[in-house]
Amino acid sequence: MSMDALLYWVGMSAVAVNALTGVLDASRKQMDLIGALLVAVATALGGGTVRDLLLDRNVFWVADQAYLMAALATGMIAFFVVRRVNVPHQLFQIPDAIGLALFTIIGTQIALQWHVPWLAASLMGVITGVVGGVLRDILCNDVPSIFLKGELYATAAWVGALSLIAMQELGLPAVNAAWAAMGIVFLLRLLSLRLGITMPVLGAPR
Amino acid sequence: MSMDALLYWVGMSAVAVNALTGVLDASRKQMDLIGALLVAVATALGGGTVRDLLLDRNVFWVADQAYLMAALATGMIAFFVVRRVNVPHQLFQIPDAIGLALFTIIGTQIALQWHVPWLAASLMGVITGVVGGVLRDILCNDVPSIFLKGELYATAAWVGALSLIAMQELGLPAVNAAWAAMGIVFLLRLLSLRLGITMPVLGAPR
Amino acid sequence: MSMDALLYWVGMSAVAVNALTGVLDASRKQMDLIGALLVAVATALGGGTVRDLLLDRNVFWVADQAYLMAALATGMIAFFVVRRVNVPHQLFQIPDAIGLALFTIIGTQIALQWHVPWLAASLMGVITGVVGGVLRDILCNDVPSIFLKGELYATAAWVGALSLIAMQELGLPAVNAAWAAMGIVFLLRLLSLRLGITMPVLGAPR
Repeated sequence: MSMDALLYWVGMSAVAVNALTGVLDASRKQMDLIGALLVAVATALGGGTVRDLLLDRNVFWVADQAYLMAALATGMIAFFVVRRVNVPHQLFQIPDAIGLALFTIIGTQIALQWHVPWLAASLMGVITGVVGGVLRDILCNDVPSIFLKGELYATAAWVGALSLIAMQELGLPAVNAAWAAMGIVFLLRLLSLRLGITMPVLGAPR
Repeated sequence: MSMDALLYWVGMSAVAVNALTGVLDASRKQMDLIGALLVAVATALGGGTVRDLLLDRNVFWVADQAYLMAALATGMIAFFVVRRVNVPHQLFQIPDAIGLALFTIIGTQIALQWHVPWLAASLMGVITGVVGGVLRDILCNDVPSIFLKGELYATAAWVGALSLIAMQELGLPAVNAAWAAMGIVFLLRLLSLRLGITMPVLGAPR
Repeated sequence: MSMDALLYWVGMSAVAVNALTGVLDASRKQMDLIGALLVAVATALGGGTVRDLLLDRNVFWVADQAYLMAALATGMIAFFVVRRVNVPHQLFQIPDAIGLALFTIIGTQIALQWHVPWLAASLMGVITGVVGGVLRDILCNDVPSIFLKGELYATAAWVGALSLIAMQELGLPAVNAAWAAMGIVFLLRLLSLRLGITMPVLGAPR
């Protein structure tokens, strides 16, 4: 399998995993099928959509609706499974961390190819990685969880995006830099979950 | 009156009705005039705006500000009426259903003309039809009602959008297909309201 | 200092002040550093971003990332200050009013240069001025405060934007009209704060 094909299929899997987390959250709010599907689509495609709008690119799922199909199919299966089985949230932490790593690095890479300056490009990576989850929480009327927990989520994405840019600046081949940066996002995320590493939280120490 | 002129005026009416529902919801949150007007504008123009951004079209109310004027004028009149009279919510169910049908089919039709693939085009129709109401609920800090009730709202829109595409694929003249698809959205919506037909809801049967 | 340079630096200050108000609000929700930074960025850059998307312009902070740097640097300093010192909210009313005036008039001016019709152009000014604060409130899961208080906030922006357009239509030089319109926004906002001038509020008088 070529590198492009690999990235395509991993990207598709990340879309599916994000659609799943959307349905899981929707189930806590007693949404109906169509509501859950729309939350799933927003969670899975929201980050890349905002990135494409900001860069004035063709929106990726309008250009290739296979992403939309993946989000809808996963959302529909998840809806009927969640109605029957109580799926523990932890089961999705590892695929979710993979999705975060992949979305972030793809987003940063696209922005760099679009000649966006480095700091803005790193923010495009973060946006691609986390905006889906923020949309999910807004649609479910929660304070976005990534802003609250103090866990390394957006932080992991940002460190990874900046590492990718630094490694490319230092002359590393683009593919190696991409894999290394994805590893950084994934490991930071998992370390935070397993070891309870957190960021300083506002209001607490006062 | 030509077909284009008819569609233009029905579209304008749909904008006005949606502006009205925005003010009605804002009144439950004790918003001031300007807040109610901005909610009215977001409700009336939000769906078509998101569609135009996703398709990289000129935003419709920037190109023709008569839509903006209709939303603002309706919103202002509604504000002062709502302060005096207690308008029952049911009064707006039929114009709201007409608005949903029209916005959905116009949105799908525009996406097809923009050569968007079919499933993405149907979602553009749903977005045009329902995003205004979702924005209204987010601005009023509610869980979007279309996600909760289990009523056929986004569902009615989606079925209608897919029917339009199917009928055009089968070779029906575009105008006939558009009227039939609008009828499908409208009837499904009214049937759901009158007969209490609902979608399966998450969380309930557990 | 030339007029362009002056506007650039006042615009940069407005970005910084808005980032600050974002962190202040985030502190009430016990957000962590990255959450507060993202809210700061959304508050500071959100209005201009929505304007640029609606006008199909290059997004300003993607074209010149100095704005992004200003928002991030201010947000980071504010985060660590707010953890130690209890900053009274009133301290920011005057810079916030300056920011509102500047963002609104810059936004209206850009829309007019983009040949947007007058009413839509005035709404672009309001959007540039207030959407950042609305995003901040949505991310913090509050009803947007500008919709509730009845204070002259969006109203001040709108009156100023319409005045700018009227003065240009009457033949005033663009620079004079811009300063006068900024003065109108600023004074209306301060008068509302000091004298308690408010708009009619829905629901109250019933």
